[in-house]
Amino acid sequence: MPGPLTLGQIVARLGGRVAGDAETLVRQVASLEGATAEHISFFTGSRYRAKLAATRAGAIVLGTEAEAETQLPRIVAENPYAYFARVSQLFNPVVAQAVGVHPSAVVAKGAKLGARVSIGALCVVGEGASIGDDSCLYPQVVVYPGCSIGARVIVHSGAVIGADGFGIADDDGRWVKIPQIGAVRVGDDVEIGANTTIDRGAIDDTVIEEGVKLDNQIQVGHNVRIRAHTAIAGCAGIAGSADIGRHCTIGGAAVILGHLKIVDHVNISAGTLISRSILKPGTYTGVYPFDEHESWTRSAAELRRKGKKNG
Amino acid sequence: MPGPLTLGQIVARLGGRVAGDAETLVRQVASLEGATAEHISFFTGSRYRAKLAATRAGAIVLGTEAEAETQLPRIVAENPYAYFARVSQLFNPVVAQAVGVHPSAVVAKGAKLGARVSIGALCVVGEGASIGDDSCLYPQVVVYPGCSIGARVIVHSGAVIGADGFGIADDDGRWVKIPQIGAVRVGDDVEIGANTTIDRGAIDDTVIEEGVKLDNQIQVGHNVRIRAHTAIAGCAGIAGSADIGRHCTIGGAAVILGHLKIVDHVNISAGTLISRSILKPGTYTGVYPFDEHESWTRSAAELRRKGKKNG
Amino acid sequence: MPGPLTLGQIVARLGGRVAGDAETLVRQVASLEGATAEHISFFTGSRYRAKLAATRAGAIVLGTEAEAETQLPRIVAENPYAYFARVSQLFNPVVAQAVGVHPSAVVAKGAKLGARVSIGALCVVGEGASIGDDSCLYPQVVVYPGCSIGARVIVHSGAVIGADGFGIADDDGRWVKIPQIGAVRVGDDVEIGANTTIDRGAIDDTVIEEGVKLDNQIQVGHNVRIRAHTAIAGCAGIAGSADIGRHCTIGGAAVILGHLKIVDHVNISAGTLISRSILKPGTYTGVYPFDEHESWTRSAAELRRKGKKNG
Repeated sequence: MPGPLTLGQIVARLGGRVAGDAETLVRQVASLEGATAEHISFFTGSRYRAKLAATRAGAIVLGTEAEAETQLPRIVAENPYAYFARVSQLFNPVVAQAVGVHPSAVVAKGAKLGARVSIGALCVVGEGASIGDDSCLYPQVVVYPGCSIGARVIVHSGAVIGADGFGIADDDGRWVKIPQIGAVRVGDDVEIGANTTIDRGAIDDTVIEEGVKLDNQIQVGHNVRIRAHTAIAGCAGIAGSADIGRHCTIGGAAVILGHLKIVDHVNISAGTLISRSILKPGTYTGVYPFDEHESWTRSAAELRRKGKKNG
Repeated sequence: MPGPLTLGQIVARLGGRVAGDAETLVRQVASLEGATAEHISFFTGSRYRAKLAATRAGAIVLGTEAEAETQLPRIVAENPYAYFARVSQLFNPVVAQAVGVHPSAVVAKGAKLGARVSIGALCVVGEGASIGDDSCLYPQVVVYPGCSIGARVIVHSGAVIGADGFGIADDDGRWVKIPQIGAVRVGDDVEIGANTTIDRGAIDDTVIEEGVKLDNQIQVGHNVRIRAHTAIAGCAGIAGSADIGRHCTIGGAAVILGHLKIVDHVNISAGTLISRSILKPGTYTGVYPFDEHESWTRSAAELRRKGKKNG
Repeated sequence: MPGPLTLGQIVARLGGRVAGDAETLVRQVASLEGATAEHISFFTGSRYRAKLAATRAGAIVLGTEAEAETQLPRIVAENPYAYFARVSQLFNPVVAQAVGVHPSAVVAKGAKLGARVSIGALCVVGEGASIGDDSCLYPQVVVYPGCSIGARVIVHSGAVIGADGFGIADDDGRWVKIPQIGAVRVGDDVEIGANTTIDRGAIDDTVIEEGVKLDNQIQVGHNVRIRAHTAIAGCAGIAGSADIGRHCTIGGAAVILGHLKIVDHVNISAGTLISRSILKPGTYTGVYPFDEHESWTRSAAELRRKGKKNG
């Protein structure tokens, strides 16, 4: 781990401006509650004002509009949360696993590994797969044959990249399997969470573009395209051939049905099921409001009565 | 991979009828957009008419009613989608993994492996488990002790078959674990998706009948029975002791509560939570309609007002 | 497996009272339907009265109020379901895996293993992680570096403990990763289901307190705290920094949004999305009522009309 830095050294590397003593030395980041004198913490909004007043942190990262909120040594930054992320990267490795291929990993002879990759214990990399420079697979990731992973990609344990898509044809009551002959292509700077699954394409490829961030336990169906810099929270499901724009955010446990188009800059709230294409940027929501069980029962019954009456 | 085939050779094997030049040679399947002269593609409905007109495919599979939609060499079949699946199987292996047990797999001495099984890297097959003829476990599948898998079954990476069901009894605020002494029995011709989990029975077995197709990240609770030829899409959850009929389809992220009975030929829409038994075939749906966030807020508030007023 | 026991021997160990022949010998538990003379079964409510009448079990566990429901030899207990769980534990091991570290597991040199732990095939235990006495990891569990697991904990296959939380900061359309430097601390007597994921904290730790029971495919975000003796069913998702009380039950596929507080003794119904803190014990529900597809379409349309009209 790198040594301590003064606030002056931090702004020399990352920009921003010091208010107060630029010689203040910090060694690590911390939350406002957990911080002591050797820590730098951050403040992003008035709902944390009481915690800011009580903190024992040595220094704070905050925005211009909040500069007067404390007299502690501080770094004033335009985007304090992103700045704090970069400060944390100075003190902590982004990838916490050694470079190299763990001896227990099973890497096919015909797989192609880039420079400085880190392949964790018990990973499987199939024939013809490729892993880009500086990428890291944590333990027990599976990359099926023929799939490609870009540079600086992080994949967490239990993720499965390239299993067959769910391609079946009904033949008079029996399901006929459609061979899934596409692959998965993952761009640069993508992160893929634990136990997330990304299916290979039926014919053409499934594509995850650069800078996409996927949380845990997300299911991405065959032939989906997720465009650059979109972020998706845990437990979301993206059905086959959905086309999701750039710079979207998709909340946890949201579901996108198949063959839909979602344009750039769309935000989908947690738990929402998207059943038709979205062609206009904005925020979209659809979750039945929860309530005490008795009230819910009445609302639900009323709703069904209406449905019948208007039928 | 097998060599090229003429349309005449294909119909000799699979039935159907050629319109146009039966000597047309194709080597692989492709989508209408991706196809070149050596590919055979398929057409299943008028919404793809523009793509059909623009395709550079060498040949097309289509239905009787669509025979005149193109002058390309074509195979006319009753069920063009299922026919196309079978054509793809002629050119591509259904199972893309070598027969045999990978040396890194951990197979218990008392496990029973059928003929021509394929056990991928880092799989675990427990004591007393059995895997039927021609079945394939992709890398990192776990089959717990005592569970049985039929013939021609495909299991994708990360699937866990036979972990304990969620059996706990409340004893005055403490949970007492109920040993899960049943097993899992999976029938012939089943496919199980990546990271799907099927729990062993509490006392009797959990049963997946022949021909069932399960997508990724499905959770099947203890003592569930899924009857033959039912297909379930990704992220669905089936709670304990649910009994699901034959020839059902269950959409992605749908949830079936425990101890329910669903008869044959029921279709459940994606995202729907089934809270009571379904005793009549048909299609069932229940998802709050999504909307722009502002409109949703109003609908949700209105709904809660109604619930209170009628209370 | 232990030998047979008489009803008298069972009540000597577990309490309760025998009605009928205390010398009745039983060897195993069974369901009312599956039982034969050597089995002891249980009866917990009048909806199973027909099954009780038809059973061929040798003995029954039931409550005081039900003592007269059968003339079979029986054990009368205050909480017959919990009692039955304990009877089953007499005949069946709670952990069905040998003590010791399987030779295929990858345990870091600096990991600390308690007495009598069982580490299954192909598990990974990272540097600085610790596993408490009598705990069991089934095959293919991953415990990331620095995470700690209490005593008598059971973790099922495919669970991932300590992967990075989903910490990203938006920097002008690019996502900056926030290093996740907290860990996961799991208390004593916790059970964690197959393919469940528990993320490490962003700065402070994610905490699962003693006696918590987690089913399969649950996602627990960074810095969540789940307090003692709470039980969560399969496919639930708990977003970052949620604080869930003691003795709660959370139904399958429920979603708890981030930074919420839920007090003790709250029950959340399956499929419900919790979007604000719950400060009063009780049962909370929120799922759109499913219906035949045509009726649903009408209810949904009506609901949207209302939302527009009141806008």
